[in-house]
Amino acid sequence: MLIVQKYGGTSVANVERIKAVAERVVKTAKQGHKVVVVVSAMSGETDKLINLAHQVSASPSEREMDLLLSSGERVTSALTAMAIEELGCKAMAFTGRQMGIITDAVHTKARIEKITGERAKKALEENYIIVVAGFQGITEGEADVTTLGRGGSDLSAVAIASALDADLCEIYTDVDGVYTTDPNIVPEARKLDKISYEEMLEFASLGAKVLQTRSVEFAMKYNVPTVVRSSFNDNPGTLVVKEDKDMENVVVSGVAYDKNQVKLTIMSVPDKPGIAAKIFNAIANANVVVDMIVQNISSDGKATDISFTVPKTDSKRALKITEDVAKELGAKGVTTREDIAKISIVGVGMRTHSGVAAKMFETLAKHGVNIMMISTSEIKVSCVIDSKYTELAVRVLHDTFGLAGGKV
Amino acid sequence: MLIVQKYGGTSVANVERIKAVAERVVKTAKQGHKVVVVVSAMSGETDKLINLAHQVSASPSEREMDLLLSSGERVTSALTAMAIEELGCKAMAFTGRQMGIITDAVHTKARIEKITGERAKKALEENYIIVVAGFQGITEGEADVTTLGRGGSDLSAVAIASALDADLCEIYTDVDGVYTTDPNIVPEARKLDKISYEEMLEFASLGAKVLQTRSVEFAMKYNVPTVVRSSFNDNPGTLVVKEDKDMENVVVSGVAYDKNQVKLTIMSVPDKPGIAAKIFNAIANANVVVDMIVQNISSDGKATDISFTVPKTDSKRALKITEDVAKELGAKGVTTREDIAKISIVGVGMRTHSGVAAKMFETLAKHGVNIMMISTSEIKVSCVIDSKYTELAVRVLHDTFGLAGGKV
Repeated sequence: MLIVQKYGGTSVANVERIKAVAERVVKTAKQGHKVVVVVSAMSGETDKLINLAHQVSASPSEREMDLLLSSGERVTSALTAMAIEELGCKAMAFTGRQMGIITDAVHTKARIEKITGERAKKALEENYIIVVAGFQGITEGEADVTTLGRGGSDLSAVAIASALDADLCEIYTDVDGVYTTDPNIVPEARKLDKISYEEMLEFASLGAKVLQTRSVEFAMKYNVPTVVRSSFNDNPGTLVVKEDKDMENVVVSGVAYDKNQVKLTIMSVPDKPGIAAKIFNAIANANVVVDMIVQNISSDGKATDISFTVPKTDSKRALKITEDVAKELGAKGVTTREDIAKISIVGVGMRTHSGVAAKMFETLAKHGVNIMMISTSEIKVSCVIDSKYTELAVRVLHDTFGLAGGKV
Repeated sequence: MLIVQKYGGTSVANVERIKAVAERVVKTAKQGHKVVVVVSAMSGETDKLINLAHQVSASPSEREMDLLLSSGERVTSALTAMAIEELGCKAMAFTGRQMGIITDAVHTKARIEKITGERAKKALEENYIIVVAGFQGITEGEADVTTLGRGGSDLSAVAIASALDADLCEIYTDVDGVYTTDPNIVPEARKLDKISYEEMLEFASLGAKVLQTRSVEFAMKYNVPTVVRSSFNDNPGTLVVKEDKDMENVVVSGVAYDKNQVKLTIMSVPDKPGIAAKIFNAIANANVVVDMIVQNISSDGKATDISFTVPKTDSKRALKITEDVAKELGAKGVTTREDIAKISIVGVGMRTHSGVAAKMFETLAKHGVNIMMISTSEIKVSCVIDSKYTELAVRVLHDTFGLAGGKV
């Protein structure tokens, strides 16, 4: 088999961890597999570099930022290759460029356009273990260094697995896999053996930090079998694959929560066509991602309230823009609320089971939790609630949908 | 003018220093010059990376070592470009690859083969200040990252100055320039305003750490006017240029010393043709650089003692090889002596003044310093002495040749 193994920052945090990674890689190779390793920067390194950049410049150039940040992964790839060679296997470190990872020129959040990987294929044939610096690529024309955004090494790994037609992509991290919910809140939370791409995508978007969203989209698009597992033990992890019959039997796979959103409400907006477009275009132009949107039916047909959520980090910027637009539209004003949480249940089984959303609302109501906003997709229901009820809501939903024990 | 400015590790040691460098660069640009900046890694960074490498591997692969070490200069180049932009000038960071620095494939001590520099020329025309990561290049075929050896950023700077046909190459460091000798030993040591390439080359080879040897060779070969000066003040520094008439009037320009050598002596080697070749071939094959060699005339025409010096770092390896060869040749054995120092006087004036060496020997003798080995070139006389006399020898020679005051 050809296996791509990706090791995150905590998995390569220091010399001892890098040696442990090398041992795992060599063990895999000795089982007869060809191995491509993708590594992140040692944990803390990227933040250290960002910090340095902000010390020299208030708004550092993004092209230079990418050159700066890409160095962390290069260091780890070189050290990991050395550690593997020390164990007697042939290894070669590759930069993003040497791996042939071509991206667009949107610095600091570039998108992979293609992976040539010719040299890697040759090296694999010559029985080299390849250690690729994650998170980075180069542009096609000028060959400038680009980075893929936070968690970009996950994307590097999945994209490389796809380009090399690997049999498996293993994402090593500091948790055992994907859980039915946060074990810090619900000790009985259960590790999932298998999850569909769609569910994983919802979990990733919902703030579960196990896999970067874009890497899941990529894995889904190119059907890359992906395993999330721990580099600190030998537990089998969670397999992320195409949805299968089995999965439909499980109505809800997990409960997620996100405390990093802020709710903005524009009060008494005149209820005319084109109003929503005006508001959300202005926000989108500022590169703020809006998550949930709720518009109340206006009772008198003249004015309405529009609420939406944005990430906490963007809330100040979003508020400023929204206030400007509100003024322009003749709305009464804008209020914000920070003490909110988004609670979500996810499961492909929802497609074929009815009454799931109702059961969620009923459960929250029974425990006195008021719902401020609701948003649904085919395989997800999210509710915005007062953040003080976060843990309670997660626990009761985890319980209601029988996630600790078996299936509902 | 087009000026290349190179800043060493102490000049970019931290955020404050990088900002100070940016100010100096911008000041130069505002005077109407085009500027190319070459930066080293922040001081301590390269050693930190080497240390990491040796922690993961007893003998790290040199290809991976280069990838590892090159990251230090990349970080500085990105940060410096950001700091320059913060001051309102257009700046762009270039890796060795983006500068078009093509080297051979001898990793960790690659030689520059050519510098294309097309993109840099274009950027200079567009009034960008270019900040190049020093110390690194890439190979032509595989485009693997290479490094140029310790102090390689000096070489990067001089080679870039030559390739871009710069008017001046300024090497910024933490000393004011080239001194007649180490001011720590002789407080009256005088900074030289001007020195010839040949003299600078001798000083560099003799262990004066101001300029890397190969960068001086390069500057001499391509006639690159080079200034060594401090990034901590505005003193004018020392100009390194082609020899001129003036310089010949100065018999001795400076006194250098080197305590980093070890003397090995092979005792009673049969005095036959080809013996020396055998010994020094074996040592050269191990990549150990032999500095001085002295062979005593054998009294009986049958056996002779051969002494030579090697860098302290290579002495163990050299001893092992020498013992093997000595055995093979039927010599009596090998002795080593670590407590030695090489004291040298340098000056292009020696070519036209006689009796300089005699004056040196006489001075040492007068102060009770025994000479173990002698080696001379056209513009240099070196003596190996007991290391405990180092400071004494430097002082009396500095005095004898009138270096503190004026000329002899």
